[in-house]
Amino acid sequence: MTTFWNTSLSRVSRNKVLIRGYRVEDLMDRCSFGDMIYLSFTGELPAGAEGRILESIVVSSTEHSVMAPSINATRFVASGGVPLQASVAAGLIALGDHHGGAVENCARLLQSAVADGRGAGEIVAGHRASGTRVPGFGHPWHDRDPRTSKLVAQAEAWGLAGPHLELARRISAELGKVMNIDGAISGIISDLGIGWEYGKAFFLISRTVGLAAHHVEETTRERPFRAVAPEDVAYDGPEERDLPARKPPRPPDR
Amino acid sequence: MTTFWNTSLSRVSRNKVLIRGYRVEDLMDRCSFGDMIYLSFTGELPAGAEGRILESIVVSSTEHSVMAPSINATRFVASGGVPLQASVAAGLIALGDHHGGAVENCARLLQSAVADGRGAGEIVAGHRASGTRVPGFGHPWHDRDPRTSKLVAQAEAWGLAGPHLELARRISAELGKVMNIDGAISGIISDLGIGWEYGKAFFLISRTVGLAAHHVEETTRERPFRAVAPEDVAYDGPEERDLPARKPPRPPDR
Amino acid sequence: MTTFWNTSLSRVSRNKVLIRGYRVEDLMDRCSFGDMIYLSFTGELPAGAEGRILESIVVSSTEHSVMAPSINATRFVASGGVPLQASVAAGLIALGDHHGGAVENCARLLQSAVADGRGAGEIVAGHRASGTRVPGFGHPWHDRDPRTSKLVAQAEAWGLAGPHLELARRISAELGKVMNIDGAISGIISDLGIGWEYGKAFFLISRTVGLAAHHVEETTRERPFRAVAPEDVAYDGPEERDLPARKPPRPPDR
Amino acid sequence: MTTFWNTSLSRVSRNKVLIRGYRVEDLMDRCSFGDMIYLSFTGELPAGAEGRILESIVVSSTEHSVMAPSINATRFVASGGVPLQASVAAGLIALGDHHGGAVENCARLLQSAVADGRGAGEIVAGHRASGTRVPGFGHPWHDRDPRTSKLVAQAEAWGLAGPHLELARRISAELGKVMNIDGAISGIISDLGIGWEYGKAFFLISRTVGLAAHHVEETTRERPFRAVAPEDVAYDGPEERDLPARKPPRPPDR
Repeated sequence: MTTFWNTSLSRVSRNKVLIRGYRVEDLMDRCSFGDMIYLSFTGELPAGAEGRILESIVVSSTEHSVMAPSINATRFVASGGVPLQASVAAGLIALGDHHGGAVENCARLLQSAVADGRGAGEIVAGHRASGTRVPGFGHPWHDRDPRTSKLVAQAEAWGLAGPHLELARRISAELGKVMNIDGAISGIISDLGIGWEYGKAFFLISRTVGLAAHHVEETTRERPFRAVAPEDVAYDGPEERDLPARKPPRPPDR
Repeated sequence: MTTFWNTSLSRVSRNKVLIRGYRVEDLMDRCSFGDMIYLSFTGELPAGAEGRILESIVVSSTEHSVMAPSINATRFVASGGVPLQASVAAGLIALGDHHGGAVENCARLLQSAVADGRGAGEIVAGHRASGTRVPGFGHPWHDRDPRTSKLVAQAEAWGLAGPHLELARRISAELGKVMNIDGAISGIISDLGIGWEYGKAFFLISRTVGLAAHHVEETTRERPFRAVAPEDVAYDGPEERDLPARKPPRPPDR
Repeated sequence: MTTFWNTSLSRVSRNKVLIRGYRVEDLMDRCSFGDMIYLSFTGELPAGAEGRILESIVVSSTEHSVMAPSINATRFVASGGVPLQASVAAGLIALGDHHGGAVENCARLLQSAVADGRGAGEIVAGHRASGTRVPGFGHPWHDRDPRTSKLVAQAEAWGLAGPHLELARRISAELGKVMNIDGAISGIISDLGIGWEYGKAFFLISRTVGLAAHHVEETTRERPFRAVAPEDVAYDGPEERDLPARKPPRPPDR
Repeated sequence: MTTFWNTSLSRVSRNKVLIRGYRVEDLMDRCSFGDMIYLSFTGELPAGAEGRILESIVVSSTEHSVMAPSINATRFVASGGVPLQASVAAGLIALGDHHGGAVENCARLLQSAVADGRGAGEIVAGHRASGTRVPGFGHPWHDRDPRTSKLVAQAEAWGLAGPHLELARRISAELGKVMNIDGAISGIISDLGIGWEYGKAFFLISRTVGLAAHHVEETTRERPFRAVAPEDVAYDGPEERDLPARKPPRPPDR
């Protein structure tokens, strides 16, 4: 491409917004938000219940009390006195490899394994050999996460379960660990034909709702500047000390 | 409150996630994402079509080509080689007072005016006197934004239009400027009983979808490190010069 | 201006970087970082000890244990598994109106008051009348902040104290509240001729160092996914409840 | 560790701030910002000219006109109407693997190679075999970057050049590519004993100054909402089209 800005996602002109070719007002009339996610990430509207399960995915993860780093981060940042979009963004940044990010890695694994015909046994053996975790399995405390069971049941009921979700299930059995919410989302979006590169997006979209609510709760119910008290901090660095008597060398003579 | 972390938004325990008291798996079964937004921001599920129009609002604003600062920012940041959630967050930060942020200010204005019984004439006169713009009206290029017309039509068709949207319409007439998408969203969410503090959230939620798609498009179709060429930059600072002969004073003798 | 990108800050061409006209290699030879801050924000190199006190300002605020929202935010975000620059950025976002942001507001106040000849009595009376705090005075726990005393002493010793710092001192006396670190920085940078628009920058620059150290400490000494325990969260929302029997209206028939 | 918050970096109590054990007011009296960076990242004050060269490193990279993704991102975000710290943070997020991030990867490579006794020939052969770039070498346009030459000359003049910088030089010769600014910083900080985990921090600290200046320039010299014009966008997605006649399936009956 030779121009500076290129896109295939949408075209905007005077009084017209086309998203993947569709007029935005038509989409507003007939599409759910789940349909829009599908359209945005695959380029086409769903033929079946794909938008329906994407809607369920984003319904599932808006909130997790104040017990997830993204949420605590937003509350601390909001307490500093910043606009809503800035504290929500700060919380979203936390959605990394250890926090929802497993969807990207798990979806990549499932998509490449299904493409190459690798099975659960081979995958688990490979991870055991290299001493790495298989992303998308196990949870620090939910052992029957209600979100996971519901998503899997919906995928089956709506005819959307395919080889990727099946592989995830077999990996879970092989590992002897529950498929967690990341694993379920990975299997489902992969069966929907959505590339693993979009893996982190679902949690991001969903959590934006909860983080906005936490920003407002923080700024309307709590005092500004959320401060941890000195007695709640354990310090294990050097004791109070004097600077060395010897002067450090001066900056360069200028 | 005396504990460090307090919330009324959700409660999480082993194998259970309650959002505003509702079990998350029940919400996944029966609620749209629009319903979830309403629940998250008001504390209750919609009694009528409130979730339906919130869904339409978030469908309306996912995308705007590469012609909005939030989107260009995400594309530049993505080109630096960062994870998806980080470049999406960078773009969201741009949704400030001049970029979708008018919803917060316009909703605050409409809510206080309806509460106090101030009319369009008084509001417009006040802004004219102080030389400030009334937020939510006028657009640099859409003069019949299809998103605005659709939202207003839906609010009426679904019995959701009330005094705030009516006031917005009268302000538009008084000003002789179109109600823009920010103004329409402001009127509608105010009629739904959603506080102005949440004003920026709708655009944030919606745009997250488009920014994720732009991140993937940037990182899969473009070369890393999006660089503006020297000849595309106009420089009007000092010409090349030598440092002053006189040495600046040294840092403190240490 | 008619081109898209315009700047007076620097010019870059093949094998040459000019900052405000000076060759970067000359600046590296003869300037301190404090000199660079002065050059960047005023356009010229310091004639006296201005760079010296800016260096002291940025030395003063790198760290505050884990007892400031910016730092706690970075630690939570880092625990999500993200690159260093992303968690540092999340923490910096917290430096808002209640967290270092007072420098912007206090410097604006001092600069306009000195320009207009308003004195401490008038300023304090005005804030008392409107029930607002004068930014830059009082501290939740330091009543003799060692950073503040040192900065004021250095400004005097180095001949940099002028009418803005003097006004800050009179406001402190009038209010019966200590000048805090924000107030001292505001007075000093204003006497240096730096515009209030740059007010938040000093804390930002300085804290970047500490946040980077916290990111590394978090990711090398702590386990991933910093999780607040359920028993440490007080919940005061609705008890567990069933969805209303009555179905919410369907999304629009499509 | 059993407490929630643990740190070795600093201890704060009433009227006292200790950084790595040193009183902040003593540091303000006798240390440069470069010394502070060294103290923050290694735990001790420099014995020689280490702080001096760190100061030169952060002087070197504050600015790059509007020709680096971090800077363009900050300008777009600032134009949305956001506080200074938020637009600076957005720009910093861009400092990823393709934009300054090479310091982390290059320093890791140099540190592990020196520790293991691997030489330039082996390293370059390994990267050639795997088809990956050696980070820290080559530049899209500077072939004699004045910042690189100056840093290398200073490291030598001040007795700070060691085996890591030497290895970087040999890799450059082996590759037939210039050592770029990332490579030079990597070699130098590695010889100073700073862990590669801090690699991205130097560019972050430095660029914060320039981004703050760009925020102010954008918000004081340009109009709000920096908008790319429709004619400057190349679109290659689907042409305008109608929604499919067939209705997508409804969301679940609720």
